[in-house]
Amino acid sequence: MKKNERISIITKVLSDHPSKVFSYSYFTDLLEVGKSSVCEDVAIVKSAIEMSGSGCVETYSGASGGVVYHPMVTKTEEEAILKEIAEMLQEPSRKIQGGFLYYSDILSNPRYSKNIGRIIASKYGDKDIEYVITTETKGIPAALETAHYLNVPMGIIRRSNRVTEGATTSVNYISGSSNKIKTMYLSRRIDLTHKKVLIIDDFMKGGGTAKGMANLMEEVGAEVMGICVIFVTRFPFEKLVDHFKPLIWMDDEDTEGTGIGVSLYSES
Amino acid sequence: MKKNERISIITKVLSDHPSKVFSYSYFTDLLEVGKSSVCEDVAIVKSAIEMSGSGCVETYSGASGGVVYHPMVTKTEEEAILKEIAEMLQEPSRKIQGGFLYYSDILSNPRYSKNIGRIIASKYGDKDIEYVITTETKGIPAALETAHYLNVPMGIIRRSNRVTEGATTSVNYISGSSNKIKTMYLSRRIDLTHKKVLIIDDFMKGGGTAKGMANLMEEVGAEVMGICVIFVTRFPFEKLVDHFKPLIWMDDEDTEGTGIGVSLYSES
Repeated sequence: MKKNERISIITKVLSDHPSKVFSYSYFTDLLEVGKSSVCEDVAIVKSAIEMSGSGCVETYSGASGGVVYHPMVTKTEEEAILKEIAEMLQEPSRKIQGGFLYYSDILSNPRYSKNIGRIIASKYGDKDIEYVITTETKGIPAALETAHYLNVPMGIIRRSNRVTEGATTSVNYISGSSNKIKTMYLSRRIDLTHKKVLIIDDFMKGGGTAKGMANLMEEVGAEVMGICVIFVTRFPFEKLVDHFKPLIWMDDEDTEGTGIGVSLYSES
Repeated sequence: MKKNERISIITKVLSDHPSKVFSYSYFTDLLEVGKSSVCEDVAIVKSAIEMSGSGCVETYSGASGGVVYHPMVTKTEEEAILKEIAEMLQEPSRKIQGGFLYYSDILSNPRYSKNIGRIIASKYGDKDIEYVITTETKGIPAALETAHYLNVPMGIIRRSNRVTEGATTSVNYISGSSNKIKTMYLSRRIDLTHKKVLIIDDFMKGGGTAKGMANLMEEVGAEVMGICVIFVTRFPFEKLVDHFKPLIWMDDEDTEGTGIGVSLYSES
């Protein structure tokens, strides 16, 4: 195999498995060349990936040395991705009776969910996240992609008790949209004791669901490292959770006929 | 930028966007080199990717020429991936009261859902699929990844009527596990008229859900190009749908205490 081809293969392996450490011997076996050639090839891949702004490649030397690709999103790229989504949200046809916005198509489209996952993973890449947790249904694609980029499993909290989840831990929460008390369930087969968890949800108004998820994490002994919510309404100003990262603010979700203002979150 | 770095970047772009056609001018702009250099670089990437068995790279020449990466899974890799999942399913701790098996953790883990998506996309890559459709909840990750590899959107059928989906089209179906008549809902904002659709579900016993999904697709004017189900029980032999591709057969899901036989699907 030629050097050029080795570089292509190393790029593909690293890019397909973000946040996963590969030993140099993995590549010497795969490519059937010596370690010094692999080291040279990896240096070129590192230079190319970092030049393109799509992430960084870390290398560890020594006997247990290895190489890992961490995807990153530049501020400019993040803004462009979120702006495109925010603009789609402003299409008048997205308004639903009751002051809601239709956005299931956006979050279910791999094109957008992958980019959202990359943005979220980029924000929490230094937090040693061990598990990504979401509540069904619309946030699942973005949570899955975040978990992929962080190289950790994803767990789904259910809104009803399903026989296929086995025994569950449940908490009650106040659903903002209906102002009713509801229950959420997590399979007890997902062991989150002492695990560092990132909570992802698609939408926040009052923060009731996010608070329920945080309570459920406390109940199962997990450590919440962050709460990231894709769409957050500006009103009410006071949310039931204090610390969360919104990706896109919705200025006015409730008033029909006045147009829906959607603005990007500015980290300030 | 050096040739080696260009090859790394072309590999990353193609690999990150399977089934998407990139024009040569996209790469000449990105890499700031002439078309002849890009053509040479693409030929090397094509050779490397095809040698590694992870897919094929097609090039189109002429003024509107371009390049596209189609992921593929070799029979050997497919068997290894499915065998690993089948072996996990045989862990005695996965048994749930009522003869069910716990597998949510497997399908929610990006490591497995990506591989499953790659396998399914590989099977339907030549069918000009325009939309991937699944029913919430457990099949969503595999459906999303399939849609990613086929470069098409994914749509989620809901098991209850949600205000955030707007107006819906609904059909009734018989749920195999409870033998009750239930209803499934698809947002009318997903326009599937004359669209070629691939149906993906996580589990089939009697086939009631799959039949409901097929009926719903007929109702909205879509053309069902295939039904792919990840886990299918051998019993009952007769399913309510005739044509479907299972990935993994479950030999005996209902008999408690006798051990659960899980076997791989053999295409013949």
